[in-house]
Amino acid sequence: MIQLTLPDGTIREVEKNTTALSVAKSISEGLARNVLAAEINGEVWDSSRPITEDATFKLLTWNDKEGKSTLWHSSAHLMAEALEALYPGIKFWVGPAIENGFYYDCDLPEGTTLSESDLPKIEEKMLQLAREKNEYIRKDISKQDAINYFKNKGDDYKLDLLENLEDGTITLYSQGEFTDLCRGPHIPHTGFIKAVKLLNIAGAYFKGDENNKQLTRIYGVAFPKNKELQEHLQLLEEAKKRDHRKLGKELDLFTFSQRVGQGLPLWLPKGAALRERLIDFMKKAQINAGYEPVVSPHIGHKDLYVCSGHYAKYGKDSFQPIQTPAEDEEFLLRPMNCPHHCEIYKSRPRSYKDLPIRYAEFGTVYRYEQSGELHGLTRVRGFTQDDAHLFCRQDQVEDEFKKVIDLVLHVFKALDFQEYTAQISLRDKDNRSKYIGSDENWEKAEQAIINASADKGLKTVVEYGEAAFYGPKLDFMVKDALGRSWQLGTIQVDYSLPERFELEYIGSDNAKHRPVMIHRAPFGSLERFIAVLIEHCAGKFPLWLTPDQVAVLPTSEKHNDYAKKVLHLLNNYDIRGFVDDRNERVGKKIRDTELKKIPFMLIVGDKETETNTISVRQQGLGEQGDLGTKTVEEFSELIDELIKSRLENFKD
Amino acid sequence: MIQLTLPDGTIREVEKNTTALSVAKSISEGLARNVLAAEINGEVWDSSRPITEDATFKLLTWNDKEGKSTLWHSSAHLMAEALEALYPGIKFWVGPAIENGFYYDCDLPEGTTLSESDLPKIEEKMLQLAREKNEYIRKDISKQDAINYFKNKGDDYKLDLLENLEDGTITLYSQGEFTDLCRGPHIPHTGFIKAVKLLNIAGAYFKGDENNKQLTRIYGVAFPKNKELQEHLQLLEEAKKRDHRKLGKELDLFTFSQRVGQGLPLWLPKGAALRERLIDFMKKAQINAGYEPVVSPHIGHKDLYVCSGHYAKYGKDSFQPIQTPAEDEEFLLRPMNCPHHCEIYKSRPRSYKDLPIRYAEFGTVYRYEQSGELHGLTRVRGFTQDDAHLFCRQDQVEDEFKKVIDLVLHVFKALDFQEYTAQISLRDKDNRSKYIGSDENWEKAEQAIINASADKGLKTVVEYGEAAFYGPKLDFMVKDALGRSWQLGTIQVDYSLPERFELEYIGSDNAKHRPVMIHRAPFGSLERFIAVLIEHCAGKFPLWLTPDQVAVLPTSEKHNDYAKKVLHLLNNYDIRGFVDDRNERVGKKIRDTELKKIPFMLIVGDKETETNTISVRQQGLGEQGDLGTKTVEEFSELIDELIKSRLENFKD
Repeated sequence: MIQLTLPDGTIREVEKNTTALSVAKSISEGLARNVLAAEINGEVWDSSRPITEDATFKLLTWNDKEGKSTLWHSSAHLMAEALEALYPGIKFWVGPAIENGFYYDCDLPEGTTLSESDLPKIEEKMLQLAREKNEYIRKDISKQDAINYFKNKGDDYKLDLLENLEDGTITLYSQGEFTDLCRGPHIPHTGFIKAVKLLNIAGAYFKGDENNKQLTRIYGVAFPKNKELQEHLQLLEEAKKRDHRKLGKELDLFTFSQRVGQGLPLWLPKGAALRERLIDFMKKAQINAGYEPVVSPHIGHKDLYVCSGHYAKYGKDSFQPIQTPAEDEEFLLRPMNCPHHCEIYKSRPRSYKDLPIRYAEFGTVYRYEQSGELHGLTRVRGFTQDDAHLFCRQDQVEDEFKKVIDLVLHVFKALDFQEYTAQISLRDKDNRSKYIGSDENWEKAEQAIINASADKGLKTVVEYGEAAFYGPKLDFMVKDALGRSWQLGTIQVDYSLPERFELEYIGSDNAKHRPVMIHRAPFGSLERFIAVLIEHCAGKFPLWLTPDQVAVLPTSEKHNDYAKKVLHLLNNYDIRGFVDDRNERVGKKIRDTELKKIPFMLIVGDKETETNTISVRQQGLGEQGDLGTKTVEEFSELIDELIKSRLENFKD
Repeated sequence: MIQLTLPDGTIREVEKNTTALSVAKSISEGLARNVLAAEINGEVWDSSRPITEDATFKLLTWNDKEGKSTLWHSSAHLMAEALEALYPGIKFWVGPAIENGFYYDCDLPEGTTLSESDLPKIEEKMLQLAREKNEYIRKDISKQDAINYFKNKGDDYKLDLLENLEDGTITLYSQGEFTDLCRGPHIPHTGFIKAVKLLNIAGAYFKGDENNKQLTRIYGVAFPKNKELQEHLQLLEEAKKRDHRKLGKELDLFTFSQRVGQGLPLWLPKGAALRERLIDFMKKAQINAGYEPVVSPHIGHKDLYVCSGHYAKYGKDSFQPIQTPAEDEEFLLRPMNCPHHCEIYKSRPRSYKDLPIRYAEFGTVYRYEQSGELHGLTRVRGFTQDDAHLFCRQDQVEDEFKKVIDLVLHVFKALDFQEYTAQISLRDKDNRSKYIGSDENWEKAEQAIINASADKGLKTVVEYGEAAFYGPKLDFMVKDALGRSWQLGTIQVDYSLPERFELEYIGSDNAKHRPVMIHRAPFGSLERFIAVLIEHCAGKFPLWLTPDQVAVLPTSEKHNDYAKKVLHLLNNYDIRGFVDDRNERVGKKIRDTELKKIPFMLIVGDKETETNTISVRQQGLGEQGDLGTKTVEEFSELIDELIKSRLENFKD
């Protein structure tokens, strides 16, 4: 008998060579039908693999991340089986599970090409094979036998993979007519796959090298229930509608130009103004929290990054140094603002009484990304950070963390991100030698982050070993309206840069001490933040932020002048908008404004012109949107009230 | 007889070969004593040079720019004579008049070095030679004779100069024991030089090439009266006190770091906040004037600057291209923002109804300057322009110029620049082939600038031939508090970039047209503007702009808390300042605050704490500065009033 320790700590005695599946069955047949794999001693295993010794034991279902990825990995094999049936002679490279599904890279037989229109046929074949409930059978094999097998099959790609594998560690998986070189794990049989959707076809170079042959990559996703596929497709549809690249264009926020350069956004007036409102919002909060503004250049002498260590670490893969036409100097586009801020700190002697010093800069930085990696505003080559660096004493770290957490939560509230968690990244428990800074300071800083997070009531997870070599950190993970997670907001302790830049302050003991540095950026990159925000709110920004808060709609041409007067008055109350003076019926104007998601429509006709009023209609509420007739002043008070409730003055 | 046409248009008949000096004498001996040179047919001549034909005729005195520069040029020769007397064997390169005096580059005899302490001795020798009233004698000489003369003298530098001169155009000038290769003109004799001040010694490479020998450059200034020298020295003293590099440090506005790179300012908190206030001030004015913000990256693909023509023209002497680590792309640090704005204009089709479009960006640009040319904030390698580009129809140019002039004058008023003139730069009258754009459009644009300037009541000078090849322009020249002139604010028409970027709009005729582009920057470079402003106001900024508007001075430690409460209240009224809670007597605090030029001191003691008031003292007024006891609210109203009168809301 062996002992299995379940997640709740209870121990179950079972025969040696029992499988996870039989344990599940012994609990209930219903449960067994949902088991996709099992976690044995922290490793994901086939549920049919015999367990030979005492182990921790957890059944994995569709509700577990590892359960999903096992089903998707098995779906990749199923797709390969279908492809082999449909296109005899096809060869395969690799086919992993990915974040939201799976893909397989394949080399189609000479003369065959695939287009999106072929995908339904492949899906159908997959579902047909799935209904056969073919078992995924694991087989240990010697390296020589594996080589013989794939040589026989004529599969060069698998032979290439085999080159790097050690004899004794090689396994094959077979289901139905298909056998693959694979370390697993897999679901019990193909019948677990009830719904399949192949999403698209892309080119992918063999081994990612553009000098090699281009293979065909087919992306797909699969589910244990048809209902889940339908929900997923709906989510994809919704995500497509909210794609910030599409909405950014529709809302006139930003554009790109090949001539300026890929990955370098050009902010159009409405986008630039929105960006500025976000910046002003953060500036105000930062001033209240005791930050001081600084401004530094977008380049720095190479020596600066040699000193910071960035050049040694990232130089080769970055935008290359800028030579001067004379005097042999070398500059770098700055990839981060911290070295500049260290030099500002160093510009004069500091006393313990001066600390904490908090330097804030909306600093634009430039980082090279391969063109294939670029994506709208989420992956760019130049972006602006709402960056700040705090220089403080060790005993001030906890308090500074609390204040930054307040700031981050202020941002989430103002922008309607209601679901978030925080990850505390600490040192590896077992290997502490790789971290810079004294053990004592690390202990204190780690405890400070834990205390500050608890004090602020954050929902946290602690991850050991996830700290950077230069300090522990706190990251915020935010769920958007579609349930997708984004990492927004980082607070990071740094013991390395103060050392490298030899930063000092004179303590109350009159001796020199090294300050602690904290990096933090609640938005992170403004570009990426705005992209997430667009997709989160589907382009319907919070009232305080949105480009046009109102549209003034004259009912006929003769009310255009009064409409303009209304807009002018609104501007004096800091309310933004425009007059729709097109020669259209007011019904059409209302419908168009509803579509543009402008929060308020102010309709002005005979009655309003006579009584110096406006008829107010709120967007998105249909009949309920009619708020009646108001004076401009009354309306401005309404707007003020709505904004204030969201933007409550942030005070330290 | 020949006819001389005087500046007032009257004609004077004189004998052929008459000199300007004898004409002056025939008017009055007193006048003749002040004549330094003459302008004959627009060319500056020795006053002793015979006039051989009909000509326009103007006597030049110390009041004329050309009069000053003639005396300074002659002073350079006088200094050379003195140097040759003191350091036999010295050789000379060039010795011109400059904006505020003169210099001579010389090669000292082997083993001789000069330091500032040697200057008085040279001055004394110059004055001794001046008192000899030696005439400056002009002599035409053949190239061969000139070569023989300088070969004989062993003067290689002059021989080098001679190489590029054509036979028949060569003249020598001699005074006393000194003869120089020179095209003149010069003052009648050395006795006109009554006061001399040698200012400093610098190194200067022969022909400006760092591979050549370093020569010794001696700077000086000279005057026809001792009183003028004294006034000049006072001005220099005052300018030294106001030097923005010195005040910038004292006021904690900015710093430089070798590690970040020379010529790249780091703005400290007080400076960054001041910069931000200037930017906010301009943003507000621009929004009122119908500008729209845009944001673009600090780099651009090389193609962008190939298209704009900047790469061909400046590429070689600029920061060199930035290579990417893969994919072989090349980017440039942007030297100007206009190409980016052209691409934004191009991002969608435009109609005549959309124009004018006014894109504004506080755009930081990077331009390479040799390290020797760098100077504080006035000559840097990276600076931020309050840039905007207007795209309009030809018929809108005049109106747009008027609006920009309003904006520029708004800036001058808000920052207390009271004296300014404007220069209208038009085409060369005689050579119109070198200008891009149709003759008709140029005519219209030139007339538009002239009309707009007249309409706005500007004091203007028109300079023909000073227009850029791509369009006419209007430049503002501002006099600072020391009477020095600075070029601040430019409005420039551009017919070239719209052509190069193929910008278009659809006219009311439904056909494609090219818009006119106008560049404008009222501040110009923020860095340079702030430098000029610091020197103009000697660090005592206008109330709305100054970093600290008040210092709250508790009379003893027990009033520190009340002082902090007062400051907090003031912050709520948007008034900036600090509490001086040092353990010092209030008299000392007042004296220190007076020195720091903080506009208001708010003294709080027993009485004020009891009555919830502050005692207000205005800086720089001595006894008169006591404004009595006020509540914080009353004081805030006073400040509001003072600021409003300067900053009157700028409305289009």
